[in-house]
Amino acid sequence: MQDALELIGRGADEILKRDELEARLSASMSDGGRPLRIKAGFDPTAPDLHLGHTVLLNKLRQFQDLGHTAIFLIGDFTGMIGDPTGKNVTRKPLTREDVLANAQTYAEQVFKVLDRERTEVRFNSEWFGQMSAADMVRLAAQHTVARMLERDDFAKRYAAQQPIAIHEFLYPLVQGYDSVALEADVELGGTDQKFNLLMGRGLQEHFGQKPQIVLTMPLLEGLDGVQKMSKSLGNYIGIAEPAIDIVTKTLKIGDDLMWRWIELLSFDIPMAEAATLRRDVAGGALNPRDVKLRLARELAARFHGVAAAEQAVAGWNAAVRGEGDLANLPLQDVPVPADGLRIAALLTAAGLTPSNSEANRKLKERAVRVDGAVVEDAARVFAPGFEGVLAVGKRTFARVRLVVA
Amino acid sequence: MQDALELIGRGADEILKRDELEARLSASMSDGGRPLRIKAGFDPTAPDLHLGHTVLLNKLRQFQDLGHTAIFLIGDFTGMIGDPTGKNVTRKPLTREDVLANAQTYAEQVFKVLDRERTEVRFNSEWFGQMSAADMVRLAAQHTVARMLERDDFAKRYAAQQPIAIHEFLYPLVQGYDSVALEADVELGGTDQKFNLLMGRGLQEHFGQKPQIVLTMPLLEGLDGVQKMSKSLGNYIGIAEPAIDIVTKTLKIGDDLMWRWIELLSFDIPMAEAATLRRDVAGGALNPRDVKLRLARELAARFHGVAAAEQAVAGWNAAVRGEGDLANLPLQDVPVPADGLRIAALLTAAGLTPSNSEANRKLKERAVRVDGAVVEDAARVFAPGFEGVLAVGKRTFARVRLVVA
Repeated sequence: MQDALELIGRGADEILKRDELEARLSASMSDGGRPLRIKAGFDPTAPDLHLGHTVLLNKLRQFQDLGHTAIFLIGDFTGMIGDPTGKNVTRKPLTREDVLANAQTYAEQVFKVLDRERTEVRFNSEWFGQMSAADMVRLAAQHTVARMLERDDFAKRYAAQQPIAIHEFLYPLVQGYDSVALEADVELGGTDQKFNLLMGRGLQEHFGQKPQIVLTMPLLEGLDGVQKMSKSLGNYIGIAEPAIDIVTKTLKIGDDLMWRWIELLSFDIPMAEAATLRRDVAGGALNPRDVKLRLARELAARFHGVAAAEQAVAGWNAAVRGEGDLANLPLQDVPVPADGLRIAALLTAAGLTPSNSEANRKLKERAVRVDGAVVEDAARVFAPGFEGVLAVGKRTFARVRLVVA
Repeated sequence: MQDALELIGRGADEILKRDELEARLSASMSDGGRPLRIKAGFDPTAPDLHLGHTVLLNKLRQFQDLGHTAIFLIGDFTGMIGDPTGKNVTRKPLTREDVLANAQTYAEQVFKVLDRERTEVRFNSEWFGQMSAADMVRLAAQHTVARMLERDDFAKRYAAQQPIAIHEFLYPLVQGYDSVALEADVELGGTDQKFNLLMGRGLQEHFGQKPQIVLTMPLLEGLDGVQKMSKSLGNYIGIAEPAIDIVTKTLKIGDDLMWRWIELLSFDIPMAEAATLRRDVAGGALNPRDVKLRLARELAARFHGVAAAEQAVAGWNAAVRGEGDLANLPLQDVPVPADGLRIAALLTAAGLTPSNSEANRKLKERAVRVDGAVVEDAARVFAPGFEGVLAVGKRTFARVRLVVA
């Protein structure tokens, strides 16, 4: 039990209420107990998932490893409504086909983390699609305007005199009622979801159920270690990215962020061991790079399998530390003109520098290497057929083959 | 046209917008024009109507007399929901049978004012009963929280930190959508309904209709001339009350209130004539009692027919002015003990005084008469079989026959 509570609490921002969680875990573990139902809701627009999204999936997985049932809830009822104010043209109503296709896209990604056998994939249109306008009125009666306006973002918008359409007050109730329909024991969400998660507690009590336990997870910081990981900020690692990119990017994060990522992303490193590692790094007995390599290997293996992860780490070691075979790096075809490209243009074409001027700066800094040897001659031309490892600085590199464009 | 506008404007508190009304009336009166659709919504709990309720019915009738269609809308959709917060136990959800029975009760009353041939009786469950939860969400999106909180009663409750359940924000939208479903040209309501009536304009525009004209009517002052007429204040005349009671009560109202009632309740006295009458009363050429008698006769005739009205007026004249036959007064059986009752107890038993002590006070004031003769002897006993007219003061009287209890 203590282990279970520790695993569930790992990385969690808040658990409401811990004693209820303990009681329910204990009932579940006793004779005749049943697995708990752990709900997490997902937007039906099916994004390409990045590591930030997996924080919640990981927590679901930990519950699954303790024998419980993950409920992967797709909020298609509101998705199929779209933006009914018509103001947000990018939020077009989804069709049922869209929803099913998006669910398929989700499934391909999330079962890299979740245990398929202990997962229910559900759609809230299942119950809301049958609800009448009168049912919605009754649901709306279960909450007051004043309490809804206490929600942080509503409060801010109201104070700033930004319009809040009335249906926005219904959506938290919809999310809350999902917990009733699913008879959820626990609901997980980001810290920004706390208000909506608590909605489920109130509604479950109204409908004669025991209120769910609410567990919030922090938002994962992105590669920069400051902002939350997001696609628009470009500070993310997508779970579909090649193993070598997962490894390369992970090896570039700062040491503080590394410990944070371990807490929220690693299954292999228990918190107790993480504490030991941290002491060893602080005392100089352990190179933080080796901790990052271990974390990178685990993440790459999760999304691409162990063999691909090993090869990616081997490639990284070959390219960055000069240990092992560069052939472990994936070979990337770079299209060039028939008469080739100068080094600066090639670095940019290979995606290693954002511009030729940046490439030339790096050349002057003697930071550009080809197959391990520093290149100084900016006029050097690389012709189609050339194959080798280009590197800019210590940790940015690519194994390329030039082909005629 | 000018006459039509004058009739419609009679007694109206506000017309939004007058130019739109004029344009629509004019289109309706032109070749190929159609009757306008004049909506008024009524609570499905079917009260016993009093004169206060008829202010709106009268206005509908005036539109009908101009050839337009009255839509008597019964808001049964919300009535069948009841109070979904469960706090107001007196607002039990109505069944469909309740709704139909109540509609029948309404019909028996309102067609004393409305022209049956030019009336559509509609129930908003007709369209809302088929609406889905998603439709309700879309409807809710058509308005903002801030604008809803501008409604006077919401603003006050919110400021006073009294709870407003979220479904209360949906009801004005429901009422507004009714105008869309009914394609209303004009909606009538009390001044307290203005916010909700305007809701219809916005929604009709959203749904591609021309916005309805909103016409608000003032709330009718009750017998006291100060408070609005209401059952709970006891200052009302119910439309089902006997003709003699309608006459008796109307003859007791003050002169100022009389002019107000004429404006809002009379069909027979045009406003121009009312102005003349008023001048004549002010100049002493006309006894205001005669104006009240005319109004009382009109009201009694509306609800009980001309013959009953004439009889009631004749009875009143006989009892109060000593002109004509007291037999025109309805005979009321008053149950008394076998050995009879003293005069004070009899006055109270007949409902002419609220208590024996009040009756005795009136005796001392020499205000009590039997068959026109002042009674001074408090010990005088009236036995079963006695028949006569009792009076207290000038305008409170009853023709009674004593029967053994």
